[in-house]
Amino acid sequence: MTIKLLLLRHGQSTWNEKNLFTGWVDVGLSDLGRSEAEKAGRLMAESGLLPDVLHTSVLRRAITTANIALDTADRHWIPVRRHWRLNERHYGSLQGLNKAQVAEKVGEEQVQIWRRSYSAVPPPMREEDMRAQQRDPRYDGVETPASESLETVIYRLLPYWDSDIIPDLKSGRTVLVVAHGNSLRGLIKELDQMTDDEIIKLNLPTGVPILYELDEDLRPLTRGGRKLDELAAERS
Amino acid sequence: MTIKLLLLRHGQSTWNEKNLFTGWVDVGLSDLGRSEAEKAGRLMAESGLLPDVLHTSVLRRAITTANIALDTADRHWIPVRRHWRLNERHYGSLQGLNKAQVAEKVGEEQVQIWRRSYSAVPPPMREEDMRAQQRDPRYDGVETPASESLETVIYRLLPYWDSDIIPDLKSGRTVLVVAHGNSLRGLIKELDQMTDDEIIKLNLPTGVPILYELDEDLRPLTRGGRKLDELAAERS
Repeated sequence: MTIKLLLLRHGQSTWNEKNLFTGWVDVGLSDLGRSEAEKAGRLMAESGLLPDVLHTSVLRRAITTANIALDTADRHWIPVRRHWRLNERHYGSLQGLNKAQVAEKVGEEQVQIWRRSYSAVPPPMREEDMRAQQRDPRYDGVETPASESLETVIYRLLPYWDSDIIPDLKSGRTVLVVAHGNSLRGLIKELDQMTDDEIIKLNLPTGVPILYELDEDLRPLTRGGRKLDELAAERS
Repeated sequence: MTIKLLLLRHGQSTWNEKNLFTGWVDVGLSDLGRSEAEKAGRLMAESGLLPDVLHTSVLRRAITTANIALDTADRHWIPVRRHWRLNERHYGSLQGLNKAQVAEKVGEEQVQIWRRSYSAVPPPMREEDMRAQQRDPRYDGVETPASESLETVIYRLLPYWDSDIIPDLKSGRTVLVVAHGNSLRGLIKELDQMTDDEIIKLNLPTGVPILYELDEDLRPLTRGGRKLDELAAERS
């Protein structure tokens, strides 16, 4: 039996558009992001790869991407599970700041370290922002981070992979995960057994689901998976 | 402890607009339906009645209404459960037909019986439509009906109320049910212990959540519940 996993990075958000550090700030999709989500749905329908269950983060840009993509693929009715462990990497006190302005202030090199290093953690959120985050009811009972590296994203992500996504995969369902650049990189690092250096170089497309076909030990048949736009092109 | 239940009928669909019998046909919302869903979300936010968990049918017009309303109320991240038992009443072979044309053919009186009687069942779906319905993956493993009365809707609805909605209510969560004219009438008949005659006279608004506050035995504090537009008006 081949197990099927679809990974989809959310479409462009209003803050991607404005070049702001976003992290856990809950911004919506831009118009481009909405059309990227529709495209993802069309690709799933055209390639005949239809998910049986959806997992998303608790952030609007992933949730709306999933809603639009599933509606387009006529899969709006499948079961849904959401979890903060699929959230984007937390960007600490950089959240809400303009990337170019931060680079002017601290230097492009420092920004590149925060953005591209595997283990660098940006400066933590201010205490008042931290208190506001703890009051957010979607994180009730969760010890939320004040800032994260890609490495710490992976630590908090894998328990959910083990407890919730793997059982769905092993039950034979085609699983769709709609999440974020860094939480999806975390899953891919685990799947493809990548080194820290390999994963930080990987950039994921938006609006194009990636298919991982897995054997019974959850090892990918093709390292890196296959992009659905290429699969759809082959079929047409 | 007061238990809170919010009932929301989906907004106008493209087939309501065209005066067609819809039933289980999976049509989307009209533009008016989308703005009704936004209004429902604003009413939940303004009245401070925010759901902790969502239950919907497996039909697009309920799912999209819920997605839009929750996004508007900043509750897009709550857990979601969907079930065919919350679907609209199945309209048998009338599905897809124009209500006025059917009335011309069989008489207005017969149409009123099918539409308004508690136990009248419209003519069943044709066999080929029935086979298509059985092939729909959302009904995998379900013995789907070929036509339903309001009475039979209630029979297939109550097992889900007992098994899935009541446990959420008893756990103290505010539960939002986004469903259809007839499945919601079924819930209300149960809650308010209405007679068959009372329930067939009840018409539910679209775009306005109805709040039922329940005691520990799930008896309503106010029979008929309270409409959120009236509650919001009182608070402002």
